[in-house]
Amino acid sequence: MVRIAVDAMGGDRGPAEIVAGALEAASDTIVPIIFGEAGLETHGLELRETRGVIAMDEKPAEAVRSKPDSSLVASVRAVAEGTADAVVSAGNTGAMLAAGLIELRRIPGVMRPAIGVPIPSKRGPSVLIDAGANSDARPEHLVQFATMGAVFAEEILGIANPEVRLLSIGEEREKGNQLTLEAHELLAASDLNFAGNAEGRDILEGAADVLVTDGFTGNVALKTVEGTILTLLEALREEITATTAGKLGGLLIRPAARRLRRRLDPDAHGGAYLLGLRGLAVIAHGNSSRTAIANAIRLAARGVEHDVVGALATRLPQRAETV
Amino acid sequence: MVRIAVDAMGGDRGPAEIVAGALEAASDTIVPIIFGEAGLETHGLELRETRGVIAMDEKPAEAVRSKPDSSLVASVRAVAEGTADAVVSAGNTGAMLAAGLIELRRIPGVMRPAIGVPIPSKRGPSVLIDAGANSDARPEHLVQFATMGAVFAEEILGIANPEVRLLSIGEEREKGNQLTLEAHELLAASDLNFAGNAEGRDILEGAADVLVTDGFTGNVALKTVEGTILTLLEALREEITATTAGKLGGLLIRPAARRLRRRLDPDAHGGAYLLGLRGLAVIAHGNSSRTAIANAIRLAARGVEHDVVGALATRLPQRAETV
Repeated sequence: MVRIAVDAMGGDRGPAEIVAGALEAASDTIVPIIFGEAGLETHGLELRETRGVIAMDEKPAEAVRSKPDSSLVASVRAVAEGTADAVVSAGNTGAMLAAGLIELRRIPGVMRPAIGVPIPSKRGPSVLIDAGANSDARPEHLVQFATMGAVFAEEILGIANPEVRLLSIGEEREKGNQLTLEAHELLAASDLNFAGNAEGRDILEGAADVLVTDGFTGNVALKTVEGTILTLLEALREEITATTAGKLGGLLIRPAARRLRRRLDPDAHGGAYLLGLRGLAVIAHGNSSRTAIANAIRLAARGVEHDVVGALATRLPQRAETV
Repeated sequence: MVRIAVDAMGGDRGPAEIVAGALEAASDTIVPIIFGEAGLETHGLELRETRGVIAMDEKPAEAVRSKPDSSLVASVRAVAEGTADAVVSAGNTGAMLAAGLIELRRIPGVMRPAIGVPIPSKRGPSVLIDAGANSDARPEHLVQFATMGAVFAEEILGIANPEVRLLSIGEEREKGNQLTLEAHELLAASDLNFAGNAEGRDILEGAADVLVTDGFTGNVALKTVEGTILTLLEALREEITATTAGKLGGLLIRPAARRLRRRLDPDAHGGAYLLGLRGLAVIAHGNSSRTAIANAIRLAARGVEHDVVGALATRLPQRAETV
């Protein structure tokens, strides 16, 4: 039985949608606990009352300090205190990171926590890390991100000896910026299964099991993938519905389009792991639907079952020493 | 009449494909001049004989210095010497940049040339700059890139008072890395029509007329857009052809898919401008088809007709002073 703290007040769609997602995920093995304002309808799920909401545009560190009883901070604290096994929030990502650092703290040896996003690429699942926790990173951070991504790939995605690639602007080792040129050397010298650079076009293609990058580039790349998929499918729909033959064709390909969405939508896993903390936190998209929330809760539960935090704690400091 | 120097030896598909593209672009107003090895079949187009080829993986500066008579360097030099009005190459991008710096030199006041790529976004054409010339850039470089992009948008895309946005990881001004945070302040204080940050998901959506970024991020983002489009359309084709109904539907939507490709394919313009030099250079994709080469030649001709270099020379130093 895994207890997942769910921040009901985070996200753009309101608490009712989050609670609906939690209900969808609730099972014999998954027990969602709702963190939200008094009186919130939870349809039988446990409610832990919180006070205050951290808005999407609030400054993370300030917000976390000034609102210790908010749903976001309280749900993270529950993991630190052991009254929940993991936390899921669709709220302010920066605040989640700040709350994680304050309440859960880092695994010894971890320099910076990072966001690992499972990407359902063409060749199967892969991990993009860091997807946005560290806008500016140093080469040695990237090596740690890669190690955390490898643990994620092994434990959660079930990939043995995962291949790591560095997101850059060319496959040759001399292509890149200062950060990636130095990180490339460190990665090549590490005990990771490092296979060299990858490019933006490899992300959805699934060139590597773990794609490592700084949080700025990773965030831009991830949102570019998401945006391109949305714009492309919407534009295709427009073109298809412009003619009668197209409309008929559109009806006939609808199941195929639906399968495709399931196969490649970066949202399919519902959330991303905040890795490197002494507790498991999953960050869901701000505009998560109930299904996305349910997926995020299942993703968190899988992380608890596979003891991702324990695996990181065992393997990170050892690896860090080799750098 | 515009004379375009065409590097026939650059690109992955061989000289015959490049020459075919040049033939396709040749018209009453466009005169392609082929730069290639002796004996190359040019089907009546002027051939200027060159010696040596710069390979895609050669180190740019060394290659340009050691092969001054190669097709790439000779075609760039033709613009410097006034025997051609612009140059198009599908060869080594770094070598084009190096040859441009050596043979054409920078427009006075320009700190760094940048690659401006026209993106056929949903709301119409826009420019992404820098798409890869400068892997590491400083905030003041980004302001110049933005200015060059704005000139490009005005002169080539016909957009009056183009809106500039900074590619970052959130719309709020405090979201970003050190580079974009500082660039944001400089852009806000400039006389550009600056509208704040954009995100990766806005690239294909066309959030801005000019999207400014450093060359590393821009290159990753551009290749991510291209790769996502390719992977998505290929995966859609696979799903569609998996069932009989899907196959029939696929036939019916084929014209729509073709219209979509024309509308959103970043390759549609055939090439990117290398901006900031005292002569016009267009860089085509390494794997350019004849049609892409023809489009790149037309793009170069349009730049000559609109005197993009003259417009940059007039407006850049003035703008640079305001920074």
